[in-house]
Amino acid sequence: MSTHRIAVIAGDGIGREVMPEGLRVLAAAADRFDLDLQFTTIDWANCDYYLQHGEMMPADWFEQLKGFDALYFGAAGWPDKVPDHISLWGSLLKFRRGFDQYVNLRPVRLMPGVPCPLANRKVGDIDFYVVRENTEGEYSAVGGRMFEGTERETVVQESIFTRKGVDRILKYAFDLAQRRPKKHLTSATKSNGMAISMPYWDERVEAMAASYPEVRCDKYHIDILCARFVLSPERFDVVVASNLFGDILSDLGPACAGTIGIAPSANLNPERDFPSLFEPVHGSAPDIYGRNIANPIGMIWSGAMMLDFLGQGDAAHGAAHDAILRAIERVLVDGPLTPDMGGAASTSDVGLAIVDAL
Amino acid sequence: MSTHRIAVIAGDGIGREVMPEGLRVLAAAADRFDLDLQFTTIDWANCDYYLQHGEMMPADWFEQLKGFDALYFGAAGWPDKVPDHISLWGSLLKFRRGFDQYVNLRPVRLMPGVPCPLANRKVGDIDFYVVRENTEGEYSAVGGRMFEGTERETVVQESIFTRKGVDRILKYAFDLAQRRPKKHLTSATKSNGMAISMPYWDERVEAMAASYPEVRCDKYHIDILCARFVLSPERFDVVVASNLFGDILSDLGPACAGTIGIAPSANLNPERDFPSLFEPVHGSAPDIYGRNIANPIGMIWSGAMMLDFLGQGDAAHGAAHDAILRAIERVLVDGPLTPDMGGAASTSDVGLAIVDAL
Ligand SMILES: CC(C)[C@H](C(=O)O)[C@@H](O)C(=O)O
Ligand SMILES: CC(C)[C@H](C(=O)O)[C@@H](O)C(=O)O
Repeated sequence: MSTHRIAVIAGDGIGREVMPEGLRVLAAAADRFDLDLQFTTIDWANCDYYLQHGEMMPADWFEQLKGFDALYFGAAGWPDKVPDHISLWGSLLKFRRGFDQYVNLRPVRLMPGVPCPLANRKVGDIDFYVVRENTEGEYSAVGGRMFEGTERETVVQESIFTRKGVDRILKYAFDLAQRRPKKHLTSATKSNGMAISMPYWDERVEAMAASYPEVRCDKYHIDILCARFVLSPERFDVVVASNLFGDILSDLGPACAGTIGIAPSANLNPERDFPSLFEPVHGSAPDIYGRNIANPIGMIWSGAMMLDFLGQGDAAHGAAHDAILRAIERVLVDGPLTPDMGGAASTSDVGLAIVDAL
Repeated sequence: MSTHRIAVIAGDGIGREVMPEGLRVLAAAADRFDLDLQFTTIDWANCDYYLQHGEMMPADWFEQLKGFDALYFGAAGWPDKVPDHISLWGSLLKFRRGFDQYVNLRPVRLMPGVPCPLANRKVGDIDFYVVRENTEGEYSAVGGRMFEGTERETVVQESIFTRKGVDRILKYAFDLAQRRPKKHLTSATKSNGMAISMPYWDERVEAMAASYPEVRCDKYHIDILCARFVLSPERFDVVVASNLFGDILSDLGPACAGTIGIAPSANLNPERDFPSLFEPVHGSAPDIYGRNIANPIGMIWSGAMMLDFLGQGDAAHGAAHDAILRAIERVLVDGPLTPDMGGAASTSDVGLAIVDAL
């Protein structure tokens, strides 16, 4: 039985509240499935640390973290303390790039017990993956200002796409689609408006599609694709998108499936050269912090994805993942639920209930 | 009674099918409200013209069009004939920039009779405006490729925001919010990811907000904003956004309100230095072209917006706008409807019915 060394980085706001529940469930799963998880708490990568040190993380963050098998991450950001672009570029976005976690994998699934904001949808109707490029593209801090403070002020920001960056995310997405029963891949584009980057993206999709004759491949401009998430979510199987479009789709998708409070994500370095990172899709939500009402399910589901990835197809790990998912489903149906889902339970009530169901 | 000179540009695909219905309704409204509309048909700005001439429009398009009071536009693009970025950058996007139509105004409204894809929403619950910047930002053809065709291939595209461009769209949006009963403005951002352009956008929003103390102003990152369109559309009143974010929100909004088939838009040069352009939100939909089943209501509603804008607050024009809206509502409730709305009527059946209702 191999030991998995996991860095626990709660971050800011409700990240700190949902993390204990994630750990509680992971500990229970480790117990039941005889997994060896070793947790190390990291108390930086949060805005209070920034206020004390002028940086979100110590200079040797990379050295400190690179030996872990995974990072279990809560959420970062507290705009009243530190502007978002400073806190996020100083933490989460550094992890994604520094550890080359180029795949952001986000399941979108209508779960039993969850009221769907879309009319007449039932469990099974919404069940797909958003595969988001996670290191380049529109997320950039390259550019600047000219004529600052004057009427002529002009701000330029670059989006940067590389063949390596585009091809590897497409390959991951096509491989995933190939393994799924429907074998259907949808690519998000906006080549009619963003006239340089997106035609390139489309070109690489076409080139990659040639190697996957069994995968049915289509593309939509991001505007109409968002509309279709609402109007016909049953159409989708694997949706591949650039960094920004993937970000949008992976909040919109979970919203269509009821709530982003339960949505998980995996920031993967598929080659395992570096630790991968697992975090809920929701953010740090300073407005509800401190009341113990945050929904811990996104954090817990992300923990299940972590076990699955760490196990690399090993049966016990796969079983642990599935058991956590079943326990989540049970609690979604029977309660207790946090207020965001219409219940009156606390964050820890839900965590405890999922452990029980396990 | 002043004459309004209107250039009629059907464009491609279903643009050619919905245009006659738009004109039919405008003619009826002109008749009833004693307006003087003079139409001139423009047979370029379409992909067939491109195939013949190697350009979407003649070199003197600007000279030919600049004297009109408005452009009534169908849709452009036919990807099997001409790649989208060529057809759109060669037509619609040239109009928007050349004629400095810097406001793209798009009402999002749940109309009577339209089944809503969101559960438990009724008429009145969704009623807001997307105010989209329409000339700069992420829509750019500035940038290029390096190491073309090699493993190192790198593609760079610039987003460009100017103080003039940002401030004037914000001013338009704040003015609009100020005139609405709720006086609520929401700004779309993504300053946590796009670390140069969007913090600038936020800064200008804050500066502008200082001049509008009565307007309640908030901001959301685009990912969570899309989620909220689905989860709580009743929160919104005026939503202001950059070119790309506005594009996304103004397809997603109408989808949440039932269909983009009926959604209108106004590309405005508020100073009236140049003609403004009125077009449905939907595109040219080559897949359904030629069957006379396209929904003409987006085109017709855009015509109503055109009358309103041309009249500059004149009573007869305002009455004509309102009467067309009432006629649309009547037909949405009583039919006939095109197949996209569950009916079996043709494009022209719907146009004729709206004329009757008028
Ligand atoms: C056709 C396309 C270039 C256009 C845009 O993205 O602006 C359309 O989607 C719109 O919303 O008017
Ligand atoms: C917090 C933010 C930088 C982040 C992103 O945009 O990637 C978040 O929205 C996400 O989806 O993980």
